Amino acid sequence: MRLNPLFYPESVAVIGASNTPDKVGFNCLESIVYGGFRGKIYPVHPRYDEILGLDVYPDIIEIDDDIDLAIIALNQYSTAEIVDSCAEKGVRAIISIAGGFREVGEEGRELEKKLVERARAHGIPLLGPNTLGIINTDHDFYATFYPMRLKKGNISVISQSGGVGLSIIYKMMDEGAGINKWVGVGNRAILDFSDILRYLARDDGTDVIAIFMEGTERVRDFLNAVREAVPRKPVVVYKIGRSKKVEFPALTHTGSSVGDQRTYEGAFRQYGVIQAGSVRELVAKSKALALCQAPEGRRLAIFTISAGPSLTVLDALGNLCEIPEFSQSTLERIRERMGDNPPLVIKNPLDVAAFGFLPDDFKFFLSAVLSDPGVDMVLAITIQHKNWRFPTPEIIEVARSHSKPLIICYPAENDVVKPEMERLQMNGIPCYSTPEDSVWGLSALLELERIRKRMDKS
Amino acid sequence: MRLNPLFYPESVAVIGASNTPDKVGFNCLESIVYGGFRGKIYPVHPRYDEILGLDVYPDIIEIDDDIDLAIIALNQYSTAEIVDSCAEKGVRAIISIAGGFREVGEEGRELEKKLVERARAHGIPLLGPNTLGIINTDHDFYATFYPMRLKKGNISVISQSGGVGLSIIYKMMDEGAGINKWVGVGNRAILDFSDILRYLARDDGTDVIAIFMEGTERVRDFLNAVREAVPRKPVVVYKIGRSKKVEFPALTHTGSSVGDQRTYEGAFRQYGVIQAGSVRELVAKSKALALCQAPEGRRLAIFTISAGPSLTVLDALGNLCEIPEFSQSTLERIRERMGDNPPLVIKNPLDVAAFGFLPDDFKFFLSAVLSDPGVDMVLAITIQHKNWRFPTPEIIEVARSHSKPLIICYPAENDVVKPEMERLQMNGIPCYSTPEDSVWGLSALLELERIRKRMDKS
Repeated sequence: MRLNPLFYPESVAVIGASNTPDKVGFNCLESIVYGGFRGKIYPVHPRYDEILGLDVYPDIIEIDDDIDLAIIALNQYSTAEIVDSCAEKGVRAIISIAGGFREVGEEGRELEKKLVERARAHGIPLLGPNTLGIINTDHDFYATFYPMRLKKGNISVISQSGGVGLSIIYKMMDEGAGINKWVGVGNRAILDFSDILRYLARDDGTDVIAIFMEGTERVRDFLNAVREAVPRKPVVVYKIGRSKKVEFPALTHTGSSVGDQRTYEGAFRQYGVIQAGSVRELVAKSKALALCQAPEGRRLAIFTISAGPSLTVLDALGNLCEIPEFSQSTLERIRERMGDNPPLVIKNPLDVAAFGFLPDDFKFFLSAVLSDPGVDMVLAITIQHKNWRFPTPEIIEVARSHSKPLIICYPAENDVVKPEMERLQMNGIPCYSTPEDSVWGLSALLELERIRKRMDKS
Repeated sequence: MRLNPLFYPESVAVIGASNTPDKVGFNCLESIVYGGFRGKIYPVHPRYDEILGLDVYPDIIEIDDDIDLAIIALNQYSTAEIVDSCAEKGVRAIISIAGGFREVGEEGRELEKKLVERARAHGIPLLGPNTLGIINTDHDFYATFYPMRLKKGNISVISQSGGVGLSIIYKMMDEGAGINKWVGVGNRAILDFSDILRYLARDDGTDVIAIFMEGTERVRDFLNAVREAVPRKPVVVYKIGRSKKVEFPALTHTGSSVGDQRTYEGAFRQYGVIQAGSVRELVAKSKALALCQAPEGRRLAIFTISAGPSLTVLDALGNLCEIPEFSQSTLERIRERMGDNPPLVIKNPLDVAAFGFLPDDFKFFLSAVLSDPGVDMVLAITIQHKNWRFPTPEIIEVARSHSKPLIICYPAENDVVKPEMERLQMNGIPCYSTPEDSVWGLSALLELERIRKRMDKS
């Protein structure tokens, strides 16, 4: 595919590589090295001989190898100039890092126009300018100026903003969610949301596409790409633009209008996009979608050792789902386990209080609720206690014999909870650290169910 | 004060103490010991001699000491019976742990009526029944059945639900926010929100009161207590009841109707309550209020090294604040530092991109923005990078010479960020791990400013 040299290059030139650790040109190079890239790396700079143990070339033309991807880490003035050399060298894709283009005014617009004309003339796909770059964990390829290594997974991210894109990355890592590909589209002078979205829609490593956007000029093309992508995999979008106050700053950020938010949101609803209103919501929803299939129906059971959190979940879910009564046999199993006169009312949401503190007991009730034929999905909540452990292995065991989506809430983010969350998620069970994050997880799956059903009908 | 024996007891009896670690009666006792209580602890049980190295008394009457507080960890049937013995012993307050009272139906209602009658007859303030208990970190007193030790601070919490109350505790610990007192009001048979709220409003250790509520029958009394408390200190309330689906489960939880949500919300607005819609929002808002004074006005400056997060903040804040232009002298200072043709637009929100990566540079721009006479408060955002450290000491230094509220966003919650957050907060600067949490912090301060101004006028 046309964008393979961008995501899966065998050889990369970093033009403007520096040996000063606080320079973008150093960090672009170090990011690739630090990320464990196994292809060839060629730093380009007229004055250095060696950086990070790599031979430096004075000019891209002088590299004695084919170059799949050129990363241009020069200032805005030099960037456009260098595209011709890249073309002469036969590079198959370009990432253009620097800002200072159309987002800053008239002079920048001229520079960007020149950059676009040259890249188009040579037929080279160009990402940026004004971008943090690209990450493909599937290729151990980290072409940004924030060196890092990420947990691998099946979520891919498109972000108009490097900073919000980094927030999404860090939040995904906090949440134990794995990333497959990450793309900062920046000014989208050539490659826009639609191009990246179409690539990811067909990418085997990507099961969920998470997008942060400010706005694009090519709205129709973007929405067409959305419409094509949604039947293949869930698309979650966090788009800003509710407040008029973001219009001008967005223009000075990546040069685009945020557009009419209602138009976007209407189209998102129509085309089956799952919407998010914050970084946290985007990540929470993507995580559930990355780990779970859509439920068969909309009937949710909640099982908890403390009623309050289940009430906050019910309140936030509103009419998004049904809360069915349990079947007679489920009620009997529960009653039998509790004995006579339990100091609580047996119902859905099921709060078993102290009856469910110990792992074996938790397992019993979870199994009863998950087995109920009138239940399509389950949220189970328990709370960290000094004197007993989390019922993680028991939950995993119960989940193995059911195909219904199961979401867990262990409300805290500390060193005790994190490894439990990891373990659940390694076994395909999303785990959240607040009731409200769990609501996002549930609602993503409920929305997916609705979208899938609608598509089956049409 | 009447409730001092509840919060500051010198001697405590735990009736129904057990030596089995998965029993509530054991955990109530262990919680007090583990918490470091320095008063006298008397376990009461007819069949044990010693638990956790403490002598066990067969009956509260036989304790050869005055008892300030009795914690009753018996089942619902025995609880009402024991109140007479507590009265005979002269206890000055009671915590009644077990559920199984009016929340479960007719039989429970009768039991609760009996419990209330007896406690009232003896004039003993009673917390519960159906409560997790009480924590007073100021007295190293942890009377719940979840043994823990908390970071001390100036936020006090009232929660109708033990589980949501625990979520709040864990989230506060995750956020590095300190707790002063924590009260689970449960069924509120005698002591209700109003009583605890009035106590905390006059409590020197409490600067902010955070409340989770489902509903109360004594709405007028509660709202009167709110009206009295707000002029003394900020009150933040997360109340559920938007969805009709919570009505019945709430009734079976702590026996109360969630009531008419619009009535509550209208009164909250009228009386100057800061509202929250989730545990996370409650904690984020309480943290800002615990560390900062209200700003003098509503003019916010945002300073960031990446524009995107500042846009998400603007979008979420909407019209809650003004985003003023910087003064000429501020603009000149910034321009001078950047040199000719910086590849960005200098404005508010101020995105300085790579100009602010290093701590000294970050400090310069933060100082410029915070010094602007047209700015009342500042949000500053930076992002974790492998090759440079967070500008934490520089931020602290700049903040020292200004009295304007300053909020920091370091977007991640990992082991690198947590100690930085701690350090900032020890110096009175709230730090958040997403742009949207920062919005909650900012909006709490902006709401406080509005409330204070309105009160000054009236």
